Amino acid sequence: MQVIPPALERVIEDLAKLPGIGKKTATRLALNILRRPPGYAHELSEALQELHASIQLCSCCFTFSESDPCAICSDPKRDGSLVCVVEEPGDLMAIEKTSSFRGHYHILHGVLSPIDGIGPDELKIRELIARISNGSVNEILIATSSTVPGEATASYLIDLLATGPVKLTRLACGIPMGMDIKYADKHTLARAIESRSSAK
Amino acid sequence: MQVIPPALERVIEDLAKLPGIGKKTATRLALNILRRPPGYAHELSEALQELHASIQLCSCCFTFSESDPCAICSDPKRDGSLVCVVEEPGDLMAIEKTSSFRGHYHILHGVLSPIDGIGPDELKIRELIARISNGSVNEILIATSSTVPGEATASYLIDLLATGPVKLTRLACGIPMGMDIKYADKHTLARAIESRSSAK
Repeated sequence: MQVIPPALERVIEDLAKLPGIGKKTATRLALNILRRPPGYAHELSEALQELHASIQLCSCCFTFSESDPCAICSDPKRDGSLVCVVEEPGDLMAIEKTSSFRGHYHILHGVLSPIDGIGPDELKIRELIARISNGSVNEILIATSSTVPGEATASYLIDLLATGPVKLTRLACGIPMGMDIKYADKHTLARAIESRSSAK
Repeated sequence: MQVIPPALERVIEDLAKLPGIGKKTATRLALNILRRPPGYAHELSEALQELHASIQLCSCCFTFSESDPCAICSDPKRDGSLVCVVEEPGDLMAIEKTSSFRGHYHILHGVLSPIDGIGPDELKIRELIARISNGSVNEILIATSSTVPGEATASYLIDLLATGPVKLTRLACGIPMGMDIKYADKHTLARAIESRSSAK
Protein backbone atom coordinates (compact mmCIF):
# COMPACT_ATOMS: atom_id res chain seq x y z
CA MET A 1 0.00 0.00 0.00
CA GLN A 2 1.13 3.53 -0.84
CA VAL A 3 1.44 5.01 2.67
CA ILE A 4 3.48 8.04 1.58
CA PRO A 5 1.54 10.20 -0.93
CA PRO A 6 3.40 10.35 -4.30
CA ALA A 7 3.82 14.17 -4.11
CA LEU A 8 5.50 13.78 -0.71
CA GLU A 9 7.59 10.82 -1.91
CA ARG A 10 8.84 12.96 -4.82
CA VAL A 11 10.10 15.70 -2.47
CA ILE A 12 11.67 13.06 -0.20
CA GLU A 13 13.50 11.42 -3.12
CA ASP A 14 14.74 14.76 -4.43
CA LEU A 15 16.00 15.87 -1.01
CA ALA A 16 17.68 12.49 -0.42
CA LYS A 17 19.94 13.18 -3.44
CA LEU A 18 21.68 15.97 -1.49
CA PRO A 19 24.95 15.16 0.29
CA GLY A 20 24.57 14.06 3.91
CA ILE A 21 20.77 13.76 3.59
CA GLY A 22 19.58 10.16 3.85
CA LYS A 23 16.06 8.84 3.34
CA LYS A 24 15.13 9.34 7.01
CA THR A 25 16.35 12.95 7.18
CA ALA A 26 14.71 13.69 3.83
CA THR A 27 11.40 12.33 5.18
CA ARG A 28 11.72 14.45 8.32
CA LEU A 29 12.45 17.57 6.26
CA ALA A 30 9.64 16.92 3.77
CA LEU A 31 7.11 16.36 6.57
CA ASN A 32 8.30 19.57 8.21
CA ILE A 33 7.80 21.48 4.94
CA LEU A 34 4.31 19.98 4.66
CA ARG A 35 3.39 21.03 8.18
CA ARG A 36 4.37 24.65 7.54
CA PRO A 37 2.03 27.10 5.78
CA PRO A 38 2.26 26.64 1.95
CA GLY A 39 4.11 29.99 1.71
CA TYR A 40 7.38 28.41 2.78
CA ALA A 41 7.34 25.68 0.09
CA HIS A 42 6.48 28.32 -2.54
CA GLU A 43 9.27 30.62 -1.39
CA LEU A 44 11.85 27.81 -1.45
CA SER A 45 10.53 26.61 -4.81
CA GLU A 46 10.90 30.09 -6.33
CA ALA A 47 14.35 30.56 -4.82
CA LEU A 48 15.43 27.27 -6.43
CA GLN A 49 13.93 28.30 -9.79
CA GLU A 50 15.94 31.51 -9.74
CA LEU A 51 19.17 29.94 -8.54
CA HIS A 52 20.60 28.79 -11.87
CA ALA A 53 18.84 31.57 -13.79
CA SER A 54 20.58 34.39 -11.89
CA ILE A 55 23.93 32.83 -11.08
CA GLN A 56 26.73 32.28 -13.56
CA LEU A 57 30.47 31.70 -13.34
CA CYS A 58 32.68 34.79 -13.26
CA SER A 59 34.69 34.59 -16.51
CA CYS A 60 37.85 35.67 -14.67
CA CYS A 61 37.95 33.70 -11.38
CA PHE A 62 35.11 31.18 -12.04
CA THR A 63 33.27 31.75 -8.78
CA PHE A 64 29.45 31.79 -8.64
CA SER A 65 28.27 35.34 -9.20
CA GLU A 66 25.27 37.31 -10.41
CA SER A 67 27.55 39.71 -12.29
CA ASP A 68 30.46 39.10 -14.66
CA PRO A 69 33.16 39.89 -13.62
CA CYS A 70 32.23 39.14 -10.02
CA ALA A 71 32.26 41.70 -7.19
CA ILE A 72 35.77 40.66 -6.12
CA CYS A 73 37.35 40.69 -9.61
CA SER A 74 35.81 44.09 -10.36
CA ASP A 75 36.75 45.70 -7.02
CA PRO A 76 39.53 48.26 -7.68
CA LYS A 77 40.60 48.10 -4.00
CA ARG A 78 41.66 44.46 -4.29
CA ASP A 79 45.08 43.33 -5.39
CA GLY A 80 44.89 41.49 -8.71
CA SER A 81 48.58 40.59 -8.59
CA LEU A 82 47.91 38.09 -5.75
CA VAL A 83 45.71 35.16 -6.76
CA CYS A 84 44.45 32.56 -4.30
CA VAL A 85 43.72 29.19 -5.95
CA VAL A 86 40.90 27.23 -4.24
CA GLU A 87 38.93 24.09 -5.04
CA GLU A 88 35.35 25.34 -4.74
CA PRO A 89 33.35 28.60 -4.35
CA GLY A 90 32.64 27.49 -0.74
CA ASP A 91 36.38 27.77 -0.02
CA LEU A 92 36.36 31.34 -1.34
CA MET A 93 33.47 32.17 1.01
CA ALA A 94 35.35 30.67 3.96
CA ILE A 95 38.47 32.73 3.17
CA GLU A 96 36.42 35.92 2.62
CA LYS A 97 34.89 35.51 6.09
CA THR A 98 38.36 35.88 7.62
CA SER A 99 38.79 39.37 6.01
CA SER A 100 42.50 38.44 5.88
CA PHE A 101 42.89 38.18 2.13
CA ARG A 102 42.71 41.20 -0.17
CA GLY A 103 43.76 39.57 -3.45
CA HIS A 104 41.78 37.85 -6.20
CA TYR A 105 40.76 34.20 -6.47
CA HIS A 106 40.83 31.38 -8.98
CA ILE A 107 38.36 28.53 -8.52
CA LEU A 108 39.54 25.16 -9.88
CA HIS A 109 36.07 23.58 -9.56
CA GLY A 110 37.39 20.33 -8.16
CA VAL A 111 40.60 18.46 -7.42
CA LEU A 112 42.64 16.00 -9.44
CA SER A 113 41.13 12.56 -9.00
CA PRO A 114 42.24 10.04 -11.65
CA ILE A 115 39.87 7.37 -10.23
CA ASP A 116 36.90 9.64 -10.98
CA GLY A 117 38.34 10.58 -14.37
CA ILE A 118 39.18 14.12 -13.24
CA GLY A 119 42.48 15.21 -14.77
CA PRO A 120 43.94 18.72 -15.28
CA ASP A 121 41.69 19.32 -18.31
CA GLU A 122 38.56 18.91 -16.16
CA LEU A 123 39.71 21.68 -13.79
CA LYS A 124 40.16 25.39 -14.54
CA ILE A 125 43.95 24.96 -14.78
CA ARG A 126 44.31 26.02 -18.42
CA GLU A 127 42.43 29.21 -17.49
CA LEU A 128 44.83 29.77 -14.57
CA ILE A 129 47.83 29.50 -16.90
CA ALA A 130 46.15 31.99 -19.27
CA ARG A 131 45.58 34.42 -16.38
CA ILE A 132 49.23 34.21 -15.36
CA SER A 133 50.54 34.56 -18.93
CA ASN A 134 49.51 38.20 -19.27
CA GLY A 135 52.07 39.14 -16.63
CA SER A 136 49.81 40.87 -14.11
CA VAL A 137 50.05 38.11 -11.48
CA ASN A 138 53.00 38.20 -9.05
CA GLU A 139 52.00 35.60 -6.48
CA ILE A 140 49.83 32.48 -6.50
CA LEU A 141 48.64 31.33 -3.06
CA ILE A 142 47.70 27.66 -3.43
CA ALA A 143 44.87 27.06 -0.95
CA THR A 144 43.64 23.58 -1.82
CA SER A 145 42.43 21.45 1.08
CA SER A 146 44.88 19.54 3.22
CA THR A 147 43.50 16.21 1.97
CA VAL A 148 45.17 13.61 -0.26
CA PRO A 149 43.54 14.85 -3.51
CA GLY A 150 43.96 18.49 -2.38
CA GLU A 151 47.69 17.94 -1.75
CA ALA A 152 48.06 16.09 -5.07
CA THR A 153 46.45 19.00 -6.89
CA ALA A 154 48.74 21.45 -5.08
CA SER A 155 51.82 19.38 -6.06
CA TYR A 156 50.68 19.29 -9.68
CA LEU A 157 50.25 23.07 -9.73
CA ILE A 158 53.63 23.63 -8.08
CA ASP A 159 55.37 21.39 -10.67
CA LEU A 160 53.52 23.14 -13.47
CA LEU A 161 54.30 26.68 -12.31
CA ALA A 162 57.76 26.13 -10.75
CA THR A 163 59.68 27.31 -13.80
CA GLY A 164 57.59 30.45 -14.32
CA PRO A 165 58.31 33.91 -12.90
CA VAL A 166 55.38 33.84 -10.45
CA LYS A 167 55.98 33.42 -6.71
CA LEU A 168 54.18 30.34 -5.34
CA THR A 169 52.96 30.17 -1.74
CA ARG A 170 50.82 27.76 0.26
CA LEU A 171 48.58 28.11 3.32
CA ALA A 172 50.42 27.37 6.57
CA CYS A 173 49.71 23.95 8.04
CA GLY A 174 49.83 23.41 11.81
CA ILE A 175 47.94 23.28 15.09
CA PRO A 176 44.44 24.85 14.84
CA MET A 177 44.00 27.97 17.01
CA GLY A 178 42.73 27.11 20.49
CA MET A 179 43.60 23.43 20.21
CA ASP A 180 45.25 21.50 23.00
CA ILE A 181 48.49 19.98 21.64
CA LYS A 182 47.79 16.58 23.16
CA TYR A 183 44.61 16.25 21.10
CA ALA A 184 46.21 17.22 17.78
CA ASP A 185 46.68 14.26 15.43
CA LYS A 186 50.29 13.17 14.91
CA HIS A 187 50.46 14.20 11.24
CA THR A 188 49.33 17.74 12.05
CA LEU A 189 51.74 17.91 14.98
CA ALA A 190 54.61 16.58 12.84
CA ARG A 191 53.88 19.22 10.20
CA ALA A 192 53.71 21.94 12.88
CA ILE A 193 57.16 20.91 14.15
CA GLU A 194 58.66 20.83 10.65
CA SER A 195 57.19 24.23 9.83
CA ARG A 196 58.06 25.80 13.19
CA SER A 197 58.59 29.55 13.05
CA SER A 198 61.10 31.78 14.79
CA ALA A 199 59.71 33.10 18.07
CA LYS A 200 62.00 36.06 18.67
CA MET B 1 31.30 43.08 0.11
CA GLN B 2 28.57 40.69 -1.05
CA VAL B 3 30.58 37.47 -1.45
CA ILE B 4 27.53 35.20 -1.61
CA PRO B 5 25.29 36.09 -4.59
CA PRO B 6 21.79 37.16 -3.39
CA ALA B 7 20.05 34.31 -5.27
CA LEU B 8 22.29 31.80 -3.49
CA GLU B 9 21.85 33.57 -0.14
CA ARG B 10 18.07 33.29 -0.54
CA VAL B 11 18.24 29.49 -1.00
CA ILE B 12 20.65 29.24 1.96
CA GLU B 13 18.32 31.24 4.22
CA ASP B 14 15.28 29.20 3.20
CA LEU B 15 17.06 25.88 3.75
CA ALA B 16 18.40 27.06 7.13
CA LYS B 17 14.78 27.35 8.37
CA LEU B 18 14.43 23.56 8.26
CA PRO B 19 14.97 21.59 11.48
CA GLY B 20 18.52 20.36 12.02
CA ILE B 21 19.87 22.46 9.12
CA GLY B 22 22.14 25.28 10.29
CA LYS B 23 23.68 28.04 8.18
CA LYS B 24 26.78 25.94 7.36
CA THR B 25 24.83 22.87 6.24
CA ALA B 26 22.43 25.08 4.28
CA THR B 27 25.41 26.69 2.48
CA ARG B 28 26.86 23.25 1.69
CA LEU B 29 23.51 22.04 0.31
CA ALA B 30 22.87 25.21 -1.72
CA LEU B 31 26.36 25.07 -3.27
CA ASN B 32 25.78 21.40 -4.08
CA ILE B 33 22.49 22.27 -5.80
CA LEU B 34 24.27 25.00 -7.77
CA ARG B 35 27.01 22.62 -8.92
CA ARG B 36 24.48 20.14 -10.28
CA PRO B 37 22.90 20.57 -13.72
CA PRO B 38 19.92 23.02 -13.50
CA GLY B 39 17.51 20.08 -13.98
CA TYR B 40 17.82 19.06 -10.35
CA ALA B 41 16.89 22.50 -8.96
CA HIS B 42 13.92 22.66 -11.35
CA GLU B 43 12.75 19.19 -10.39
CA LEU B 44 12.96 19.96 -6.64
CA SER B 45 11.30 23.33 -7.22
CA GLU B 46 8.37 21.72 -9.05
CA ALA B 47 8.05 18.97 -6.46
CA LEU B 48 7.81 21.66 -3.74
CA GLN B 49 5.20 23.60 -5.75
CA GLU B 50 3.03 20.50 -6.04
CA LEU B 51 3.47 19.41 -2.43
CA HIS B 52 0.74 21.48 -0.80
CA ALA B 53 -1.36 21.53 -3.97
CA SER B 54 -1.74 17.73 -4.14
CA ILE B 55 -1.71 16.77 -0.48
CA GLN B 56 -4.56 17.32 1.95
CA LEU B 57 -5.58 15.85 5.29
CA CYS B 58 -7.73 12.70 5.21
CA SER B 59 -11.06 13.82 6.73
CA CYS B 60 -11.27 10.58 8.72
CA CYS B 61 -7.80 9.95 10.19
CA PHE B 62 -6.11 13.32 9.39
CA THR B 63 -3.00 11.87 7.78
CA PHE B 64 -1.43 13.54 4.72
CA SER B 65 -2.98 12.02 1.61
CA GLU B 66 -3.66 12.77 -2.05
CA SER B 67 -7.12 11.19 -1.78
CA ASP B 68 -9.89 11.66 0.78
CA PRO B 69 -10.47 9.29 2.52
CA CYS B 70 -6.85 8.11 2.44
CA ALA B 71 -5.68 4.72 1.11
CA ILE B 72 -5.72 3.20 4.60
CA CYS B 73 -9.17 4.49 5.64
CA SER B 74 -10.68 3.35 2.31
CA ASP B 75 -9.04 -0.11 2.29
CA PRO B 76 -11.78 -2.71 2.95
CA LYS B 77 -9.15 -5.24 4.12
CA ARG B 78 -8.19 -3.12 7.12
CA ASP B 79 -9.92 -3.31 10.46
CA GLY B 80 -11.74 -0.05 11.20
CA SER B 81 -12.69 -1.20 14.69
CA LEU B 82 -9.05 -0.88 15.84
CA VAL B 83 -7.72 2.70 15.77
CA CYS B 84 -4.10 3.59 16.50
CA VAL B 85 -3.66 7.15 17.82
CA VAL B 86 -0.34 8.76 16.85
CA GLU B 87 1.16 12.23 17.12
CA GLU B 88 2.25 12.86 13.53
CA PRO B 89 1.94 11.38 10.00
CA GLY B 90 5.61 10.33 10.32
CA ASP B 91 4.61 8.01 13.19
CA LEU B 92 1.99 6.39 10.95
CA MET B 93 4.66 5.80 8.29
CA ALA B 94 6.98 4.21 10.87
CA ILE B 95 4.22 1.85 12.07
CA GLU B 96 3.18 0.97 8.51
CA LYS B 97 6.77 -0.05 7.73
CA THR B 98 6.50 -2.81 10.36
CA SER B 99 3.50 -4.41 8.53
CA SER B 100 2.35 -5.42 12.04
CA PHE B 101 -0.71 -3.23 12.26
CA ARG B 102 -3.83 -3.82 10.16
CA GLY B 103 -6.19 -1.30 11.76
CA HIS B 104 -6.90 2.37 11.08
CA TYR B 105 -5.12 5.45 12.43
CA HIS B 106 -5.95 8.76 14.02
CA ILE B 107 -3.37 11.54 13.78
CA LEU B 108 -3.46 14.05 16.66
CA HIS B 109 -1.15 16.53 14.88
CA GLY B 110 0.88 17.28 17.97
CA VAL B 111 1.04 16.63 21.68
CA LEU B 112 -0.32 18.51 24.67
CA SER B 113 2.13 21.26 25.56
CA PRO B 114 0.64 23.99 27.79
CA ILE B 115 3.87 26.03 27.60
CA ASP B 116 3.46 26.32 23.81
CA GLY B 117 -0.27 26.99 24.20
CA ILE B 118 -1.22 23.58 22.79
CA GLY B 119 -4.22 22.21 24.67
CA PRO B 120 -6.75 19.50 23.72
CA ASP B 121 -8.58 21.90 21.36
CA GLU B 122 -5.45 22.35 19.24
CA LEU B 123 -5.17 18.56 18.65
CA LYS B 124 -7.60 16.33 16.73
CA ILE B 125 -9.08 15.01 19.99
CA ARG B 126 -12.63 16.25 19.41
CA GLU B 127 -12.53 14.44 16.06
CA LEU B 128 -11.35 11.25 17.81
CA ILE B 129 -14.32 11.41 20.22
CA ALA B 130 -16.64 11.91 17.23
CA ARG B 131 -15.13 8.85 15.50
CA ILE B 132 -15.66 6.73 18.60
CA SER B 133 -19.18 7.98 19.22
CA ASN B 134 -20.66 6.21 16.17
CA GLY B 135 -19.94 2.85 17.82
CA SER B 136 -17.76 1.27 15.14
CA VAL B 137 -14.52 1.46 17.16
CA ASN B 138 -13.76 -1.36 19.63
CA GLU B 139 -10.16 -0.65 20.55
CA ILE B 140 -7.96 2.45 20.69
CA LEU B 141 -4.20 1.77 20.64
CA ILE B 142 -2.52 4.86 22.06
CA ALA B 143 0.86 5.12 20.33
CA THR B 144 2.15 8.54 21.39
CA SER B 145 5.91 8.84 21.88
CA SER B 146 7.50 7.73 25.12
CA THR B 147 8.50 11.33 25.93
CA VAL B 148 7.17 13.59 28.69
CA PRO B 149 4.62 15.40 26.44
CA GLY B 150 3.79 12.12 24.67
CA GLU B 151 3.08 10.41 28.00
CA ALA B 152 1.05 13.41 29.21
CA THR B 153 -1.07 13.26 26.06
CA ALA B 154 -1.57 9.51 26.52
CA SER B 155 -2.65 10.04 30.15
CA TYR B 156 -5.10 12.75 29.08
CA LEU B 157 -6.65 10.44 26.46
CA ILE B 158 -6.87 7.55 28.93
CA ASP B 159 -8.66 9.75 31.50
CA LEU B 160 -10.97 11.06 28.79
CA LEU B 161 -11.89 7.65 27.36
CA ALA B 162 -11.73 5.52 30.54
CA THR B 163 -15.49 5.63 31.19
CA GLY B 164 -16.45 4.77 27.60
CA PRO B 165 -17.09 1.30 26.18
CA VAL B 166 -13.92 1.27 24.05
CA LYS B 167 -10.95 -0.90 25.02
CA LEU B 168 -7.78 1.18 25.53
CA THR B 169 -4.30 -0.23 24.87
CA ARG B 170 -0.79 1.21 24.73
CA LEU B 171 2.41 0.23 22.94
CA ALA B 172 4.64 -2.03 25.06
CA CYS B 173 7.60 -0.26 26.66
CA GLY B 174 10.84 -2.16 27.33
CA ILE B 175 14.31 -3.11 26.11
CA PRO B 176 14.78 -2.42 22.38
CA MET B 177 15.38 -5.55 20.26
CA GLY B 178 19.08 -6.42 20.00
CA MET B 179 20.08 -4.18 22.90
CA ASP B 180 22.54 -5.27 25.56
CA ILE B 181 20.83 -4.95 28.96
CA LYS B 182 23.81 -3.25 30.56
CA TYR B 183 23.54 -0.35 28.12
CA ALA B 184 19.79 0.19 28.60
CA ASP B 185 18.99 3.34 30.60
CA LYS B 186 17.63 2.69 34.08
CA HIS B 187 14.13 4.06 33.36
CA THR B 188 13.68 1.73 30.40
CA LEU B 189 15.05 -1.19 32.38
CA ALA B 190 12.76 -0.41 35.35
CA ARG B 191 9.77 -0.28 32.98
CA ALA B 192 10.82 -3.58 31.39
CA ILE B 193 10.95 -5.23 34.82
CA GLU B 194 7.55 -3.84 35.85
CA SER B 195 5.99 -4.94 32.56
CA ARG B 196 7.69 -8.36 32.53
CA SER B 197 5.76 -11.03 30.65
CA SER B 198 5.24 -14.70 31.41
CA ALA B 199 7.88 -16.86 29.67
CA LYS B 200 6.17 -20.23 29.76
